[in-house]
Amino acid sequence: MSTFLDTCRDLIGPAHVLDAAHDMVPFLRDWRGRFTGSALAVLRPGSVAEVAALVRACADARVPIVPQGGNTGLVLGGVPDASGTAVVLSLARMNAVRAVDPVNRTMTVDAGCILQRAQEAAAAHDCLFPLSLAAEGSCTIGGNLATNAGGTAVLRYGNARELCLGLEVVTPQGEVWSGLSGLRKDNTGYDLRDLYIGAEGTLGIITGAVLKLFPQPKASVTALAALPSPAHALRLLSLMQDRAGASLTGFELISSFCLRLVAEHFPQLPRPFAQPSPPPFPQYALLELSSNESEKHAVGLLESAIGAALEQEIVLDAVVAGSVAQSRGLWQLREHIPLAQAAAGKNIKHDISLPVSRIADFIAETEPLLQEAFPGCQLVCFGHLGDGNLHFNVAPPPGIANEAFLVNQDAVNRVVHDTVARYGGSISAEHGIGALKRDELARYKDPVALTLMRAIKAALDPQGIMNPGKVL
Amino acid sequence: MSTFLDTCRDLIGPAHVLDAAHDMVPFLRDWRGRFTGSALAVLRPGSVAEVAALVRACADARVPIVPQGGNTGLVLGGVPDASGTAVVLSLARMNAVRAVDPVNRTMTVDAGCILQRAQEAAAAHDCLFPLSLAAEGSCTIGGNLATNAGGTAVLRYGNARELCLGLEVVTPQGEVWSGLSGLRKDNTGYDLRDLYIGAEGTLGIITGAVLKLFPQPKASVTALAALPSPAHALRLLSLMQDRAGASLTGFELISSFCLRLVAEHFPQLPRPFAQPSPPPFPQYALLELSSNESEKHAVGLLESAIGAALEQEIVLDAVVAGSVAQSRGLWQLREHIPLAQAAAGKNIKHDISLPVSRIADFIAETEPLLQEAFPGCQLVCFGHLGDGNLHFNVAPPPGIANEAFLVNQDAVNRVVHDTVARYGGSISAEHGIGALKRDELARYKDPVALTLMRAIKAALDPQGIMNPGKVL
Repeated sequence: MSTFLDTCRDLIGPAHVLDAAHDMVPFLRDWRGRFTGSALAVLRPGSVAEVAALVRACADARVPIVPQGGNTGLVLGGVPDASGTAVVLSLARMNAVRAVDPVNRTMTVDAGCILQRAQEAAAAHDCLFPLSLAAEGSCTIGGNLATNAGGTAVLRYGNARELCLGLEVVTPQGEVWSGLSGLRKDNTGYDLRDLYIGAEGTLGIITGAVLKLFPQPKASVTALAALPSPAHALRLLSLMQDRAGASLTGFELISSFCLRLVAEHFPQLPRPFAQPSPPPFPQYALLELSSNESEKHAVGLLESAIGAALEQEIVLDAVVAGSVAQSRGLWQLREHIPLAQAAAGKNIKHDISLPVSRIADFIAETEPLLQEAFPGCQLVCFGHLGDGNLHFNVAPPPGIANEAFLVNQDAVNRVVHDTVARYGGSISAEHGIGALKRDELARYKDPVALTLMRAIKAALDPQGIMNPGKVL
Repeated sequence: MSTFLDTCRDLIGPAHVLDAAHDMVPFLRDWRGRFTGSALAVLRPGSVAEVAALVRACADARVPIVPQGGNTGLVLGGVPDASGTAVVLSLARMNAVRAVDPVNRTMTVDAGCILQRAQEAAAAHDCLFPLSLAAEGSCTIGGNLATNAGGTAVLRYGNARELCLGLEVVTPQGEVWSGLSGLRKDNTGYDLRDLYIGAEGTLGIITGAVLKLFPQPKASVTALAALPSPAHALRLLSLMQDRAGASLTGFELISSFCLRLVAEHFPQLPRPFAQPSPPPFPQYALLELSSNESEKHAVGLLESAIGAALEQEIVLDAVVAGSVAQSRGLWQLREHIPLAQAAAGKNIKHDISLPVSRIADFIAETEPLLQEAFPGCQLVCFGHLGDGNLHFNVAPPPGIANEAFLVNQDAVNRVVHDTVARYGGSISAEHGIGALKRDELARYKDPVALTLMRAIKAALDPQGIMNPGKVL
């Protein structure tokens, strides 16, 4: 193996081959701190040609490769296993914005470009790159694409998949596919782009991408609506879509318990309905409307829609933000739910999706099943309702220690995921499979789909060196 | 082979196995009437189970299968070759709308469902299925997906690919992948859906699909703008996108020559700038704005944007439709271009795409190259400018017979497609490859991409029975 690492040092310079344990730690430890893997070395190439040369060296020596972007994944997809046989191939040094084309509304970036930097580069050209998620200050475009990241703007702009027009990929044989097309229509053969997107680095390494840009909206305005139930949230969503169409840029469901958690742990945040403390509305929806015309247009549209929803008794009460700062405040309530959860202790997380129309029924059926199996457990249910995506997390009953409850993880997963499967949903809406959900995938995925996936994996990576142990 | 056809008759009933020459003709003749292939038989299964059983029978007997929807393709992708060794598997009998879910904004349909029927089923639930193209009265959803159809609504709603959430597919082994998910987020493994979409039936047979629906806009309003050049059309596109965002639902470029052709051959159609006959504006753009709010909103937005474009001297003159009938009239001008071309005689067609920002330069460079090589040839240039998609057709010089000019087809293709390649464009924007453009694909496609495509084909269809001779 010293020969192999010497080859790597020759290819990219010794400074970029890290094999001292303390240098490697940040690349081996999972974002949530649950697991630390082991590796031969961390390789930090500086160009596509260097990535290709390293992959060829790995293929020759049959060394497994774990591609890594910002290492912010939530499913152990970007860290190596404990065997110490793999290398981590970090794209972090390849972080350039290669070009911005505001007339084509595209931007070409290196895979290692931090998401926030890509957003800023777009904004500098008065364009919007809409992908937005909690880790945006650390995660990279390559990782966003490898995991088909979601976030809060999917309702209007789609997942990472829909935001990408072209890719540059290094294959497991160390060849470079130059697919950096900025085309909106291109029917010349199989859709390789979408095969690599979401493959979590198991079919090759994304080194560059052409991303879609959008006109920067002139204004966005936010409201928080209190609702009797998730079923009412669905009615509100339909009403908003009918009236606002693509101007509806956010629709998040937040349960009462979530807002209560946030109020407890972040008392400095706004309490929109506080007289004197959050009243017991069962559910909330956070809405955002954007307009390419004017703030007046956005506010007018939102107020008339909320007015109609109040009149139809879909909404119990509502607060419309009167300023950008107030909008920020309402979004902070949503964004602080995961932080409040963490402050409250550990819980058992699920990142599920369902047909939008079945969400209310799903919640109504699953909550009693959980209560029956784990009496007193507390549901932390929130998410991107417009996309059918719930973060459906289960916290211990009051007074029960985290550790005592977490032993139920598999049993809780079974209740939630079995019900998801019955409702035609997905056990991973936006986080991917990684190593964490591999067994769950094998359990729930259509067997013909699994056979097809394995055939594709074997065809494109016959040596099995690309991110082994992930997804399949 | 009589044993094989007997097996087919047993599987789906003798009435649905057509092997008399006169019964087969409509399935063997290409839409444009340029080619008639030959087949063992035409199989017309009535269910997914029957499709699967037929595919297993074909796999056992190694009989090639040509899947067919409405047989409206333009690249010889849905008709068999002349060998007579294949069967045509027509999905026409599987034409049901299985379900409409207006809250999830999805519709599940059989592959053989006619596009127009799908549009109508959506409209009956006050929803929009936006895919729209000239053949919509005959083409099927399965064919639309197999070719990743485009059309006039791509600017706002995307290609067929973006309008599909899930598929049901019969594999070349006769297994059924049940991927009819109505989920907007699902990151559970490789994106099989997008692999089958656009694969032109070479990897399996699409038998059903879940399609995305949208809120029905309250109003659409159309304008025809006269412009000095394609470069001005790009400036107008940017201006409209900035002001209207997703409300811009159509943006078509039409050259002066195209409108002149339409006026000659369809004198009954409106002449928006006629005093007394179409004045010599060099270019036109057909714009459509839609609003989920009101007609007043759409008209106000369009008029203020056109006003700004006139003020900035981007637009020379403009006509805004004052009624639905006038809007229809303006769209008819666009829709009659292909018919006017056909009436004028044959020409050499190209379905190309380019980065939007490079279209004006592409036209400015390619037109003189064509004039140099084929003096006096006439360019019929129109298309979906907002998608970077041009129908860039070359007609004979005045007075030259079609046949005499058509011998130049390969040489004309070379001039156009070489320039397309230099500009980072695609030789097939929305029509696909089929048998017609297979050699062109081999010439222009990235060789690594071709290698990857061949590996996928070999992995999923090792016998090579699915639509052989198409795409690869």
